[in-house]
Parts: sequence; C-alpha cells; structure tokens
Amino acid sequence: MFELHPRLMADTFEICELGQSKLLLMNDARYLWCVIVPKIAGAVEWHDLDEATATTVFNETMAVSRAIKTLEGIDKINIGAIGNVVSQLHIHVIGRKIGDAAWPTPVWGNGIAEAYSDTDAKNIIEKIKTALQKPL
Amino acid sequence: MFELHPRLMADTFEICELGQSKLLLMNDARYLWCVIVPKIAGAVEWHDLDEATATTVFNETMAVSRAIKTLEGIDKINIGAIGNVVSQLHIHVIGRKIGDAAWPTPVWGNGIAEAYSDTDAKNIIEKIKTALQKPL
Repeated sequence: MFELHPRLMADTFEICELGQSKLLLMNDARYLWCVIVPKIAGAVEWHDLDEATATTVFNETMAVSRAIKTLEGIDKINIGAIGNVVSQLHIHVIGRKIGDAAWPTPVWGNGIAEAYSDTDAKNIIEKIKTALQKPL
Repeated sequence: MFELHPRLMADTFEICELGQSKLLLMNDARYLWCVIVPKIAGAVEWHDLDEATATTVFNETMAVSRAIKTLEGIDKINIGAIGNVVSQLHIHVIGRKIGDAAWPTPVWGNGIAEAYSDTDAKNIIEKIKTALQKPL
C-alpha cells in the first residue's frame, strides 16, 4: 500500500491529488517548488513503472510544468527525478526566476529552506490549483 | 532548423541518434552521464513540445534510463531537465553510484569534469549502445 515518505510529508504541503499522484508544495518560499509523488507502493525509478502509469505520471508532470510557467515571474521550469536520499519516486517541478536564491544553478542542496507563513502557503497553493484548472 | 547548441557539442560525445533526439555522453568520467537532445529547433521547455513529440522524448528518456541502470555498478538514475544556462531543451539521464564524486547530491555544478581518454569514451559508448539494443 502506498504511503507518502515521512521526509516528503515533513517538508511539504499537499496541494491536491492528480490522477496517479499526489501534488505537493515544498515548504521553501525561495522557489515555486512542486513535487509529484506517484501513488505506487515501492516505486523508485520512473522506468520501473508500467508504461501506461509512467506515461500518466509524465502527462501530470507536463500539466504541472505548464501551469507553473504561467505564474507571475516564472522564467524557467526545472524538472528532476533524483531520489538519492529519499528513494520513493518523486518528481520535482520547480518554477525558477532569473536572479532567485540559487540562479542559475539547480536548487537542490543550495542553502537553507525558508518556510512559508501559513497565509503565503495557502495563497500559493490556491494559485497553483487555479493555474492547473485553466484550459491549456 | 535544429542545430545542437555549441556548448552541448563541446562538452559531449555523440552516442547515437534516437527517433526524436540525439543521445550524447557528457565528457565527464566521474559519472555515467547521458544527455538527450530532442531535434526540435527552438525547444526550451519540455511542455512546449506537442503532445506526441513530448511523449516520444519521454519514452526515449525511459529507454536510456532503463539501459543505463543495467550497467555495472549503477545504483540510481537521476533525470533532470534544467536548462538555466543552456536553454536548448536537453534532458540529463545520469547513472549514479553510491559513493561517486558527488553522492548523494546531484551532479550539476559539483566540482570539475574529468575528461575521458579516447579509449574509455569509445568503450563506454559501446556499452551504452549495447545496453540500448537489448530487449527490455
């Protein structure tokens, strides 16, 4: 049975469920940093998923990428499936701004996360949900 | 017309053509580091490709991931589409070994590339080609 890894749970807010995945917001106000976690027990590598499931997760990744790119000030999307520390398959989809805290290097392992205020987290979650619901 | 970005050309060897992409080997012997470049002029974000092309590139990414994972000593695959410096759409597929030069952090921006000898580059390219041709 699928259970979200405790480290992912501790570091994120839940945005919503996608068809095959949970969509999470990393609690780091420096970036618009989403994480997609396919609800497949024991999944580690993306290529280990059966083809239909892998493609669904890819389509969800593209939908999140496209939605985030519409949000204010986002210049570039960074996508990563790394999992060297938390092996549960999870896909980062990060909205980057030119000049942000890590620009132009990747965000992983770069400095210390800055927690959102409750209000800011709620606002950004609403913005992401709204962007996801817009027709493409 | 598609042309490989000069920075990608300078930093890699060509392994082979895939259906939609060029498959390159990063000239960095510290990792088994492949780069997939869709042959689409002007492509920047993965989600900007039309759906069929995006899915083909995803399937090519999964095939490379699966092939690399079979090679000796590879413990984890890291996938990334970043493009903050070189905006031409390119997807990193990296075979990581526990204890390698950057483990467990991502490879990007970590230390200095170690060039392959000509012989080593040829050998690893042959190994990747052979792994790609094996039935899945």
